Amino acid sequence: MANLERVSRNKSFGGWQEVWKHDSSATNTSMQFGVYLPPQAEQGPCSVVYWLSGLTCTEQNFITKAAAQQAAAELGLIVIAPDTSPRGTDLPGEHDHWDFGSGAGFYVDATEKPWSAHYRMDTYITRELPALIQAHFPVQGKAAIMGHSMGGHGALVLGLRNRDQYTSISAFAPISAPSECPWGKKALGHYLGETENWAAYDAQFLIQQEGKHLPVLIDQGSEDNFLKDGQLLPEKLQAAAEASNYTLSLRYQEGYDHSFYFISTFIAEHLRFHAQHLQ
Amino acid sequence: MANLERVSRNKSFGGWQEVWKHDSSATNTSMQFGVYLPPQAEQGPCSVVYWLSGLTCTEQNFITKAAAQQAAAELGLIVIAPDTSPRGTDLPGEHDHWDFGSGAGFYVDATEKPWSAHYRMDTYITRELPALIQAHFPVQGKAAIMGHSMGGHGALVLGLRNRDQYTSISAFAPISAPSECPWGKKALGHYLGETENWAAYDAQFLIQQEGKHLPVLIDQGSEDNFLKDGQLLPEKLQAAAEASNYTLSLRYQEGYDHSFYFISTFIAEHLRFHAQHLQ
Repeated sequence: MANLERVSRNKSFGGWQEVWKHDSSATNTSMQFGVYLPPQAEQGPCSVVYWLSGLTCTEQNFITKAAAQQAAAELGLIVIAPDTSPRGTDLPGEHDHWDFGSGAGFYVDATEKPWSAHYRMDTYITRELPALIQAHFPVQGKAAIMGHSMGGHGALVLGLRNRDQYTSISAFAPISAPSECPWGKKALGHYLGETENWAAYDAQFLIQQEGKHLPVLIDQGSEDNFLKDGQLLPEKLQAAAEASNYTLSLRYQEGYDHSFYFISTFIAEHLRFHAQHLQ
Repeated sequence: MANLERVSRNKSFGGWQEVWKHDSSATNTSMQFGVYLPPQAEQGPCSVVYWLSGLTCTEQNFITKAAAQQAAAELGLIVIAPDTSPRGTDLPGEHDHWDFGSGAGFYVDATEKPWSAHYRMDTYITRELPALIQAHFPVQGKAAIMGHSMGGHGALVLGLRNRDQYTSISAFAPISAPSECPWGKKALGHYLGETENWAAYDAQFLIQQEGKHLPVLIDQGSEDNFLKDGQLLPEKLQAAAEASNYTLSLRYQEGYDHSFYFISTFIAEHLRFHAQHLQ
């Protein structure tokens, strides 16, 4: 039993921005997610886009700051915004770091103890949540997936690992080579153990695997401090894509940083990109 | 000396969302405000709109949640978002209530002690801040003024008290008759003393005074809990306007509540309304 329950509901651009909670069997915790239902959802099923948020976020950051509702209403898209980790547990060290543990699930299925009991965000995002959305909301067809920073990493790896499930992938300032940046090494080390296990959740390796070439759009701000700090490494993903003749669109946006001001500026373009492939 | 200093700067829709702080002689405290500079501000002076926020807000709420930057960039408008009270003081009871004291300046010049030493938001918003903006940012002409809830009250009363200074007034869910609602009675009683002093900051009385009829646009959500609780009373303002042949546009928006989801849905319409009168 999912015990699906609506937490809040606010009218927005003629549709509804809702937050729901439910018991997750993937994470063995209660989980919350945001869902924007455009006006068109009252007439019939709509296509769905998943948004994966970055470090420290809950489902609230995207739904309050990204200003995605306007474009979603125009395009008739349902937008799902899950949380970024299990909540309500108290594993050793879980809440001690902003870049690891709670708020930092990294969209993997952890294999290492104690994380493996709850930190199964891959299964949650790609299996449990879509089944629940399918059962309870008026969605149709395959989904698109997008995200920001850690969530951009999530969109890339989950999209590339499940190429028949998604139509298109987009990301804002994604962690593009987690095996090689401090954030990624810390998280993947704790969640997955030995470095040989990391490639399964690193976009630069996944993009070189055989399979359908899903359309990929990436926006990266040129003034992003985390880009300068070597946490994002989009050039490594681009090189890997070129090496395997995978065409992706990586755009450097002059003057933009890592914040939601950057995301809100380009979110409508990303939703239009996905709408085109969802149809 | 204002000691004007930039706190943050984020690129947004080709322009810049900035936050500044300065020493205020009106409030005898440091004050912060947000300013959105559209791309057009790099070419020459732009018209300016003041946004006044509601109870509990700082300058951050509007700039992160209202999604005003897109329309401001399209229309070439500078948008100023001040804080809602002095900060950094510790007057008796100042921080004990969410609807009075810090975060709840009500846009009056307090005459009662101890508030009169700092709570002079009228002078701050209508005199000191415009002079500072004029001196340091590329603005031109008269300004427009708008706000939400307590800030809708602020936009109405400061606009109606200074009809030569502003081109147009708009409000989301304003406290329209503060002399007659619990929030208003509490605040005006503490800040202004005897009830006979309250009419000077009550829109339903100000709208009946002689003077220019500035264009007024008000949006009110039909599902706003504070409307149902009798805190907003737009019908009293409407009746007062009709009694003095002042035409205002009061629109009830079906299904919307008191939140920023309501504001972000209609903010572009409000900015277009002001742009039309600013030109």
